Amino acid sequence: MDNRALGVFDSGIGGLTAVKEMIHLMPNEDIIYFGDTARVPYGSRDAETLRAFAQQDMEFLLSRHVKAILIACGTVSSTALSILQKHSTVPVIGVIQAAAKTAAKSGNRIGVLGTQATITSHAFRDAIQNENPKCKIIEKACPLFVPLIENGYIDKPATKLIVEDYLRDLVAFGVDTVILGCTHYPLLNNFIQEVLPTAKIIEAGKEAVYELQQVIHEKDIGTNTDHRGNRKFYVSEMTKTFQSVCETFLDETTEGKIELFRF
Amino acid sequence: MDNRALGVFDSGIGGLTAVKEMIHLMPNEDIIYFGDTARVPYGSRDAETLRAFAQQDMEFLLSRHVKAILIACGTVSSTALSILQKHSTVPVIGVIQAAAKTAAKSGNRIGVLGTQATITSHAFRDAIQNENPKCKIIEKACPLFVPLIENGYIDKPATKLIVEDYLRDLVAFGVDTVILGCTHYPLLNNFIQEVLPTAKIIEAGKEAVYELQQVIHEKDIGTNTDHRGNRKFYVSEMTKTFQSVCETFLDETTEGKIELFRF
Repeated sequence: MDNRALGVFDSGIGGLTAVKEMIHLMPNEDIIYFGDTARVPYGSRDAETLRAFAQQDMEFLLSRHVKAILIACGTVSSTALSILQKHSTVPVIGVIQAAAKTAAKSGNRIGVLGTQATITSHAFRDAIQNENPKCKIIEKACPLFVPLIENGYIDKPATKLIVEDYLRDLVAFGVDTVILGCTHYPLLNNFIQEVLPTAKIIEAGKEAVYELQQVIHEKDIGTNTDHRGNRKFYVSEMTKTFQSVCETFLDETTEGKIELFRF
Repeated sequence: MDNRALGVFDSGIGGLTAVKEMIHLMPNEDIIYFGDTARVPYGSRDAETLRAFAQQDMEFLLSRHVKAILIACGTVSSTALSILQKHSTVPVIGVIQAAAKTAAKSGNRIGVLGTQATITSHAFRDAIQNENPKCKIIEKACPLFVPLIENGYIDKPATKLIVEDYLRDLVAFGVDTVILGCTHYPLLNNFIQEVLPTAKIIEAGKEAVYELQQVIHEKDIGTNTDHRGNRKFYVSEMTKTFQSVCETFLDETTEGKIELFRF
């Protein structure tokens, strides 16, 4: 039993899609979230920069005495997971493994969507092939999704056109399963499902939350409180989109719960 | 007379719109360009970060022994011009002053388009009002333009929809003049002129090139060669878009002319 909070971080608002699942599955756990909104997007940066940013993000959460950390960011998970695990005193979970396992079980022709850095790393492809070498895989970088989402272009016609462009190769490939390898992408779920109506969509962030729940169970570090957990959100730059997504998507009152933290 | 090269820098490919004008007006001058493609976009970063990036960009050009520097970036010009001028041994020109002067002369109702950082700084507004306090001014941040352009979304229907969204307030305001306060934006000129067919479009980068030409004349630091100048492009990350914009927009063969430089 451990009543400390769970830590979550992302480059921006994407990790909130994982937080939604955490609140749903573990309603009594406290959560501390960090979104690096001043330095988003991470997906176009090189590996060295990403590792430096990721370590700062993790250090911030560790300084807040969290009991486990979810890297709710596909880009960081695919480029810096092992270095973060090496430097952490608490369990650190990325978003690659669990999603790859689920996809390899259910799919034959798998599409992987992610940022440029995630796709360049081939982390999802390698993890899927490790689980099931017979899977056929197509990878596609979607570099505009994060800027669109972070700028509030979530439900707009322009965004739909860009989703159609980026998914064209997956349609032609005939994917039966799609991994959303970036935690921002579930915010575009409606458009993605419209373009790929029969494909099974696997959210990497959500799968990682199941893995986190498993780790909490195995290590017996769940909270023993029976009241609704506290949620606290830190951002490196205050943005309108962060607040509105928090409120509409998470259905959380954010009054007094979002705070600025600058490195 | 001075046969050293002119230095130009920008966060990415935007400054190439100014280079085009430089080649047109000063065909014999050598040009060294730096595009910080690994850290683009600048426009959403805070002033402190911007000043640090800008100083690195300038130091790079100074280390290449340029005779003058054009900051072909609205964001840097509006947040870091004076600090760069203070640290430079050669003339440094930004994109604010000349554009503000031209706009204040020709327009009554002026729209300013720029990145979030440029608009937040109100640098163009203040400079215009300084020239002519009677001008009515509307400012509009267009945070998605740079990501769209840097990712090759220059001539796409989705981009047109976003241009229409961002320019809606300017249409309602009845602008007669529009300053493109970011050197990337002229790459969207066709769409911008379609939405504002009667407005006079002032490109801040182009106006700054006229100012640079004036400075070269006054200080007598023009080249005395009569052959076509050499152009050399450095980028902090090699991107397909940089190469293709260089070739299609500048009409320059880039073979052997684009080189990677990492900080």
